[in-house]
Amino acid sequence: MSTIAYLGLGIMGRGMAANLLKAGHGVTVWNRTAERCAPLVALGARQAATPAHAVADAEVVLYCLSDDHAVEDLVWGEGRLIDAVRPGQIVLDMTTVHPNTSRKESAAFAEKGVDFLDAPVFGSKNEAANGGLWIVVGGKREVYETVLPLLEPLSETTHYMGENGRGASMKLVGNLVVAFQLEAIGEAMVLATKAGLDPRDVLGVLHVTDFKSPIFDGVGGALVRRDFDVNFALKLMLKDANLIASFAQDLNVPLPGGAAIRENIKVGVNRGWGEENASAFIKVIEEGAGVQVKA
Amino acid sequence: MSTIAYLGLGIMGRGMAANLLKAGHGVTVWNRTAERCAPLVALGARQAATPAHAVADAEVVLYCLSDDHAVEDLVWGEGRLIDAVRPGQIVLDMTTVHPNTSRKESAAFAEKGVDFLDAPVFGSKNEAANGGLWIVVGGKREVYETVLPLLEPLSETTHYMGENGRGASMKLVGNLVVAFQLEAIGEAMVLATKAGLDPRDVLGVLHVTDFKSPIFDGVGGALVRRDFDVNFALKLMLKDANLIASFAQDLNVPLPGGAAIRENIKVGVNRGWGEENASAFIKVIEEGAGVQVKA
Amino acid sequence: MSTIAYLGLGIMGRGMAANLLKAGHGVTVWNRTAERCAPLVALGARQAATPAHAVADAEVVLYCLSDDHAVEDLVWGEGRLIDAVRPGQIVLDMTTVHPNTSRKESAAFAEKGVDFLDAPVFGSKNEAANGGLWIVVGGKREVYETVLPLLEPLSETTHYMGENGRGASMKLVGNLVVAFQLEAIGEAMVLATKAGLDPRDVLGVLHVTDFKSPIFDGVGGALVRRDFDVNFALKLMLKDANLIASFAQDLNVPLPGGAAIRENIKVGVNRGWGEENASAFIKVIEEGAGVQVKA
Amino acid sequence: MSTIAYLGLGIMGRGMAANLLKAGHGVTVWNRTAERCAPLVALGARQAATPAHAVADAEVVLYCLSDDHAVEDLVWGEGRLIDAVRPGQIVLDMTTVHPNTSRKESAAFAEKGVDFLDAPVFGSKNEAANGGLWIVVGGKREVYETVLPLLEPLSETTHYMGENGRGASMKLVGNLVVAFQLEAIGEAMVLATKAGLDPRDVLGVLHVTDFKSPIFDGVGGALVRRDFDVNFALKLMLKDANLIASFAQDLNVPLPGGAAIRENIKVGVNRGWGEENASAFIKVIEEGAGVQVKA
Repeated sequence: MSTIAYLGLGIMGRGMAANLLKAGHGVTVWNRTAERCAPLVALGARQAATPAHAVADAEVVLYCLSDDHAVEDLVWGEGRLIDAVRPGQIVLDMTTVHPNTSRKESAAFAEKGVDFLDAPVFGSKNEAANGGLWIVVGGKREVYETVLPLLEPLSETTHYMGENGRGASMKLVGNLVVAFQLEAIGEAMVLATKAGLDPRDVLGVLHVTDFKSPIFDGVGGALVRRDFDVNFALKLMLKDANLIASFAQDLNVPLPGGAAIRENIKVGVNRGWGEENASAFIKVIEEGAGVQVKA
Repeated sequence: MSTIAYLGLGIMGRGMAANLLKAGHGVTVWNRTAERCAPLVALGARQAATPAHAVADAEVVLYCLSDDHAVEDLVWGEGRLIDAVRPGQIVLDMTTVHPNTSRKESAAFAEKGVDFLDAPVFGSKNEAANGGLWIVVGGKREVYETVLPLLEPLSETTHYMGENGRGASMKLVGNLVVAFQLEAIGEAMVLATKAGLDPRDVLGVLHVTDFKSPIFDGVGGALVRRDFDVNFALKLMLKDANLIASFAQDLNVPLPGGAAIRENIKVGVNRGWGEENASAFIKVIEEGAGVQVKA
Repeated sequence: MSTIAYLGLGIMGRGMAANLLKAGHGVTVWNRTAERCAPLVALGARQAATPAHAVADAEVVLYCLSDDHAVEDLVWGEGRLIDAVRPGQIVLDMTTVHPNTSRKESAAFAEKGVDFLDAPVFGSKNEAANGGLWIVVGGKREVYETVLPLLEPLSETTHYMGENGRGASMKLVGNLVVAFQLEAIGEAMVLATKAGLDPRDVLGVLHVTDFKSPIFDGVGGALVRRDFDVNFALKLMLKDANLIASFAQDLNVPLPGGAAIRENIKVGVNRGWGEENASAFIKVIEEGAGVQVKA
Repeated sequence: MSTIAYLGLGIMGRGMAANLLKAGHGVTVWNRTAERCAPLVALGARQAATPAHAVADAEVVLYCLSDDHAVEDLVWGEGRLIDAVRPGQIVLDMTTVHPNTSRKESAAFAEKGVDFLDAPVFGSKNEAANGGLWIVVGGKREVYETVLPLLEPLSETTHYMGENGRGASMKLVGNLVVAFQLEAIGEAMVLATKAGLDPRDVLGVLHVTDFKSPIFDGVGGALVRRDFDVNFALKLMLKDANLIASFAQDLNVPLPGGAAIRENIKVGVNRGWGEENASAFIKVIEEGAGVQVKA
C-alpha cells in the first residue's frame, strides 16, 4: 500500500483515483472545484484543500489534466506544485502533453530531488473507469519499476519507452494512428454509403480481415446509430492533432496524411462539434460528399 | 461436389484452385502459360488448352486476375469467354476491378443466360494458400447461396453485399482502409524513430490498445526487419489506389486523406519499388524525413 | 479569306465564330439546337442543318465543345464528322480534352487524309468574345502555320507546342496552375479575413508584388463583392480537375497539391455550386473556417 | 532628413541601410559581427558598438532580422533594446514574425512611451538592394504617416493594414500565396516535362494568360537553367511555412493546400537543400515523379 496524492478529478482522474482506492491505496485528492471530490471521499479518499496539502504526506503524486497549459498552471502557476514537493517523492504526469513539457517537468522536479515520469495513457472514460488503460512511460527505469504496482489497477498494459519525454512522444505517435483510423473509417463509410452499400454490411466486413481494428467496431457502430456522445471530445482531439503537428515540426518530419487529417478536424470544430465525440469530424466528410452514413 | 473451371493461375489462383481440389471438387484449370498448371494437375486437376475447353463441362467458372484489363481480355478479348459460356452456368469474377467492369460482365453474361457474381477477396498469397480469404460478393442472393459451399474451402468469411457491383465496391472501400493503415503505420513509425523511440517498443504498444490491428503487427514487424518481400505488390496497390480514385470520382466523393496517400504510392513506384511489397512505399515517408525505421 | 465550318455554338463558340466572321472569313455554322445560329447568321454566317452539310465546302473545320464526351459524339457518334470530312481539309479541336482523345482524333482524321490540330484555348467567355484567347496547339508545324491567320482574330497569343496531343497537354498543365491560384487566393483571403484584415486591403497588396497575377484581381475582386456569376462554371472546372488527375495518373506523376485541391472542388459541386463560377469553391474554404470574405 | 538606427545587417539590412543613406538620412548601424558595417560606413554611416549606442540619438529604429527568435534576442535578450529606447522614438520591426510577436513588441515598447510598427517586407535580396520592396504595416496610422518618407527609398509600394499585428499578418498571408505558386509551378513543370512538353515552351505560355505571374518567369526560368542560387533560402521558407501553420492554428483556419505544401518543403530541407533557394523544394516534386525539368 502506497500513499498517493491525486490532483485533478476530470473525466480521467475520477476513474483512476477510484481504482487506486479500490486497490487499497491511501489516496488524498484535490480538485479546483472541491465538490468533485465527494464521490472519492465516499470511497475512502482524504480530501485536501490545496495541491500543497495533498502532496504533503504522499509517496507518489499523480495527475492527468486536460492539456499542457493546465500542467503549467498546476506545476508553476496557481498550483505551485513545484514548491510543495519534497525530495524522494515521485511525480507522474499522465496528461497528454508535448514531450518538451515532460522534459521541462522532469528537469524542474529533478532540481527538487524528485523523480518524475511522463506516463500518458491510451483509452478514455470507459478504460479509466474500468482500469483498462494502456500506459506509456518515460523516465528512469528503476522509478518505473517502483511505481509499477500502482499502475496495475489502472491499466491493461504498461510500456516502458525510455528516458523522460518518450512516454509523451509515444502518446502522440499513437494518437496520430488514431487520427488516421477515424479519417479512414469516415472516408470508407461515406464512399460506401454513396455507392449504395449498406453501412452495417460494410462494418461486418471491417470486423474481420487482417486490417480490422476494435476502433472500427466502436466508432463505426456509433456512426451508423448517429451517436456522437462524448467519450473523447473532438476539441481535445484537435488539441492533440495540434500537438502532433508541433512535435513533427520540431523534428521536421513530413506527415502528408496526418496534415490533411488535421485540417479536417479543424473544420469539425468550426462547424460547432467540438464538444461532441472525436468521431464527429466524420460529419465533415459526410457534408463534403453530400451523404449521411446511417443504418 | 461441383465441376469447376478455374481460369488463370497467378499468385491467388494457384492457392484457390488447390483448395478447391483438396475440398473434393472436380477442377479444370487453364492458364496462358501452360506450365503453371502442373502443380494443380498433380493434385488431380484436369488441364484445358483454352478457356473454352475449360468451361465446356463446368457448372461454375472462377477467375481472379491482375486487373480490369486482364478481365476484359479474358471475357471479350483473346479469351472469348463470353462466347464459350452456356445457359445455366455461374461465373464468379474474384478479381479486384472497378464496379463498372463487374456490372458490364454481369450484363453480358446475363444475355447468355449465365449468372454472374462479383466476388473479390481480401487477403493475399498466404490467405489464398491457407483458405483464409475474406470474400465480398455482389449479385443475386440465390446465386450467392448456391455457390456458398464452393467458397467455404477458400475463405474464413464470406459476405453478401447486394446486387452486382457491390462486391467490387466493397473491395475498393476496404482497400481504401488498407491504404490508410499503411500510411498510418509509416508516418507513425517514422515520427517515432526520429523522436528516438525504439521501433520495436512502438510496435509493442500498437499491438495492444483499442486501435490495434493485425496489419500493424505484420507490416510493422516486416518494416523493422527491412523485409519488403512481396506478399501484395506495390504496383498492384497503385493500381487499386487508382481504381479507388476513379470510383470516388464517378460518385464525386471527396477523399482528402485517400488522395494524399495515393500520391505517395505513386512516388514509391517511381522510386523503383513497384515489385516489392505494398508496404515499400513507407520508404517514401522515410526518405522525406531523412530517417530509417529499423530494429 | 478562308471557308470555315464552325460546329457547336456554346459560350465559347459564339464568340469565336463571330470574330471569324468579323475578320472577313466565310463561316458556315451548325448547332444541335438550331436557334443559336441566328445571331451568327445575322453577322453573315451560312447555317447548316447537319455537321456533314457544314463541312462540305470547308477548308477548315473548328469546334470547341464542353468535354471529351461531346467530342466523341460529334466525331464518331451522332455527328458522324469522321464520315463527312474530305482529304485536304484541316480540323481544329479547340475543346479542353484528354491528350489521348486528341491523339485518337488525330489518328482517325489522318486515315481520311485530313490534318488535325488540337488547339485548346485559355480564357473564357470574355476572351472568346473579345478575341483575346491564348491558344496552345499540337500537330504538324506546317499545318499550324497554315491556320495561323485564322487564329489571329481569335487570340492574343498562339503557341505551337509540338506534335498532336501537346496542345491538349499544355491546356491541362495550365489549368492545374489555375486550380492552384484559386485555392491560393481562397485560403489566403479566408485566413486574412479571420485574422481581422480588410479583404480589400489584402487585394491591394496582392495587386502588386512579384507574385501578383491578373487572376487574383479578377477572382479576388468578385469574391469580396460576393459575385459568383458564371464566367467559367465550377462543374467544368471539376471536369478539368478530373482530366488533370487522369492525365497525371497515366504518367504516374504525383501532384500532392493538385490532388488536395481537386477534393475541395468536388465538395463545391456537392454543395450545389456547380453552375456558379469556378471561384465558388472558395466558399468551401470559407465554410471550413466559419468565416465569409466580404467587403 | 531623419536620424535612424539600423540594427542588424543581414542580406536585407545591408540593402535597406544603404538606400536610407543614399536618400540622405543619417544612419547609425550596428551588427553583431562588426565587420559587416564597413560597406555602410563607406557610404557615410556611423557605426555603433552596441544596440544601445546605436539608438541613443535616433528618431527611428529599424531592424529586419531572420526570425522571431532573433527579434526576441535583440529586444529582450542580449541586445536589451527594450532598456535602450527613449519616449518619443519610433521602432519598426521589418522582420517576418508571428503577429503575436509583433503585438508583444508593440505592448512592451508602448510601456516605454515608444511607438511601434510591424512593417515586414515582400521581396528579397534584389528588391532590398534596389529599393523595390513592398512594405505592409501595422500600428497607429499617424505613426505610419510619420515614417512614410523613410519607407519611400526602400520600397515600390507601402500598405497600411491597420492596428499592430496586421502588418505581420499580411506578410504571412502573402507568403502563403508564394508557397502555393512555387508548388504550382513545380507540379505544372514536372507534369509538363513528363508529358514530353518543352519546359521553355510551357514558360512561354505561363508568361501570358490571365493567370500569369512574375514569379513564374523568375522561378520557372531559373528552374530550367537548374539555378538554385539563393535569393530567399529554403530554410527560411520552411520557417515561414511553420509560422503560417502556427498562425492558422491560432485562428483555427483549415488550409488543406497550404498544409500539403508545408510537408513538401520539410522534405526539401531534409534532402539537404535548406541553404539553396526556396524554389529548390521543386526538386522534391521532380524526385517523386522521377523526372527533371531542364532546357
